[in-house]
Amino acid sequence: MSVTVAKGFVAAGVKAGIRRSGLDLALVRSLPPAVGGAVWTTNRVQAAPVTVSRRHLESAEPQAVVVNSGVANAATGERGVSDAEQTAVEAARALGVLPEEIVVLSTGVIGVPLPLGKVQKGVRAAAGLLGPDGGNDAAEAILTTDRGSKQSSLAAPGFTVGGMAKGAGMIHPRLATMLAVVTTDFPLEPGEADAFLRTAVNATFNCISVDGECSTNDAVVLLANGASGARRDASVDESFAGALHEVCADLARQIVEDGEGATVLLEISVSGAVSDDEAAAVARRIATSPLVKTAAFGHDPNWGRVLAAAGSAPWNGGFAHLQAELLTVTFDGTPVFERGTPTGLAPELTGAAVTIALDLGLGTGSAGYLASDLTYDYVRLNAEYTT
Amino acid sequence: MSVTVAKGFVAAGVKAGIRRSGLDLALVRSLPPAVGGAVWTTNRVQAAPVTVSRRHLESAEPQAVVVNSGVANAATGERGVSDAEQTAVEAARALGVLPEEIVVLSTGVIGVPLPLGKVQKGVRAAAGLLGPDGGNDAAEAILTTDRGSKQSSLAAPGFTVGGMAKGAGMIHPRLATMLAVVTTDFPLEPGEADAFLRTAVNATFNCISVDGECSTNDAVVLLANGASGARRDASVDESFAGALHEVCADLARQIVEDGEGATVLLEISVSGAVSDDEAAAVARRIATSPLVKTAAFGHDPNWGRVLAAAGSAPWNGGFAHLQAELLTVTFDGTPVFERGTPTGLAPELTGAAVTIALDLGLGTGSAGYLASDLTYDYVRLNAEYTT
Repeated sequence: MSVTVAKGFVAAGVKAGIRRSGLDLALVRSLPPAVGGAVWTTNRVQAAPVTVSRRHLESAEPQAVVVNSGVANAATGERGVSDAEQTAVEAARALGVLPEEIVVLSTGVIGVPLPLGKVQKGVRAAAGLLGPDGGNDAAEAILTTDRGSKQSSLAAPGFTVGGMAKGAGMIHPRLATMLAVVTTDFPLEPGEADAFLRTAVNATFNCISVDGECSTNDAVVLLANGASGARRDASVDESFAGALHEVCADLARQIVEDGEGATVLLEISVSGAVSDDEAAAVARRIATSPLVKTAAFGHDPNWGRVLAAAGSAPWNGGFAHLQAELLTVTFDGTPVFERGTPTGLAPELTGAAVTIALDLGLGTGSAGYLASDLTYDYVRLNAEYTT
Repeated sequence: MSVTVAKGFVAAGVKAGIRRSGLDLALVRSLPPAVGGAVWTTNRVQAAPVTVSRRHLESAEPQAVVVNSGVANAATGERGVSDAEQTAVEAARALGVLPEEIVVLSTGVIGVPLPLGKVQKGVRAAAGLLGPDGGNDAAEAILTTDRGSKQSSLAAPGFTVGGMAKGAGMIHPRLATMLAVVTTDFPLEPGEADAFLRTAVNATFNCISVDGECSTNDAVVLLANGASGARRDASVDESFAGALHEVCADLARQIVEDGEGATVLLEISVSGAVSDDEAAAVARRIATSPLVKTAAFGHDPNWGRVLAAAGSAPWNGGFAHLQAELLTVTFDGTPVFERGTPTGLAPELTGAAVTIALDLGLGTGSAGYLASDLTYDYVRLNAEYTT
């Protein structure tokens, strides 16, 4: 009941018939007036619901989020935009709010039109079922082929943050991926949500990789309704930022653990970089290296591949700064390469998680990244399901 | 006999015992004084032979190239540099030239010291076997786990260009990859080789991807000895540039066709971009997309994945310009997405090669890229061989 654990939120998940079976439409609503914000995919190809919802957020504060799975409503032209708008109109009518106060999200197959009639009917049904117990159903309804729902919540002194996410399980061809909805009864002023959310997202959802892909539909939405009545000061704000970070980090980790075909979680940390941003560029390159990821699948502490990946991390039109003779690499805490020289140690990597730490020995910049391994199942899931 | 097909070149390949079995040391020499140049890996982690050979080329024209397989001599610290220097000294002594006139290349396992004694003995043996018939052995000796040797030659009116390459078969862990040696009897002046070579490499070896990795040892070397006696003018120079391009393109294509686990060759072309460079960025992103590459393995004309990849092509700190409503995608000549709208067509992709053409509809920039698919065998080859 993650998404309804904060005061004043209700949700529902229904079977609208968009997918062949199972729940496929979720509705999340704040009862007290809420403020909110969102972080959207930066892909130049953006799905219709992203286009429509961005526009809505520019003119109004969001009061409810509709999410359908099964069809991404991406690459669907003008009809797709109209379908997303009609979905918002239907939800607004059912909830007694303005269409601009509705955020619409879709995940599923690209290039297929939204079955608007089914979606509208589903929205009406969900509106009738909204309740404080609806969080689980909502979290189920946004999944496509994830192995399980992804929920998280954190009760801080005076307020609560909860969230649900749909993972990077692009196992059906053309699937457009990651979505998350986070709710809180913490009181935010209009316009404040975006900054809090962006900070949390940059350090969590933007530091994970299953396969380095960037979908047309990715979105993280935050609704804050103030129902906790919490009194704010700098320290309470910091506490809220921390709780928001924790919930996003927990959901992000669940997404990687449930990555396509994943068997091993790679926890990558880079330190000693010239700057945090360069550290992040190096960490991202390691996290998306097919050779590092297949080595992880093979439980191989292959520091040579880590070095080769780190040395070719795109940065500023070239590669991030590093010098081979200053590098230190550890696997699960065991140094395998120390200031430019192999140590001869080869730790056994038997766990479900592997930590890879790279110290560049240049400065104080650092960053972390979570990634899944690259496995037979990743290939199977993405190759065998032909359209 | 590719690398000895141009006049005045001799070569040999010998079994130096660096690898468990087979030829593992190649020597290529020009008998008349040659000029030459090279294009090196841009990885920040560079193998010792790269460091040493770059320095040599700064002070002298190269007369011979020594290549060993089995050990990459990368991440080997100061000893590695000394080993590469000693290899050059041994070859110089055997051939009666200066150490600075020797280019040393290595490919194989990262982080393992070069067995210098074996290499020196191999160099002496190879020097004694040098001959115009040694090209095949040389091309064999530079392979690691490639399925076969990669050779190419082109006889133009008045001169000849030949080359050998070792492919992106990083199937042993930590393997450092692509190498190519190109020889010609075309007369180049000192200092001219680099520019001719860079132009050819940018359009060929730099437009291929097996897995998007960038090794610590990649190098392409050109030796030109003028033995053809060709008379130069602008038109003959153009003919030479064309022949050099063709030989490099042929070797590059062979590398991709023999990519790790490859079953399908993807011929990707992007047109209608704002510039050629942006077109190349988009083509590279498609060529390295795990989702596009697994779809190719599954013979799936999955244009949704092509769109999602194209829309997130890194460019200038953001993504390359494109607008979804202007995009056209064809698979093997069949339009599947036309100016922003799905056509409903789904061509059968049954061939060993698939062409993916993306027209951005914005400008006149264009680029091509060759890539292999992402398969079970890629994962097996890179995961199963644990160290």
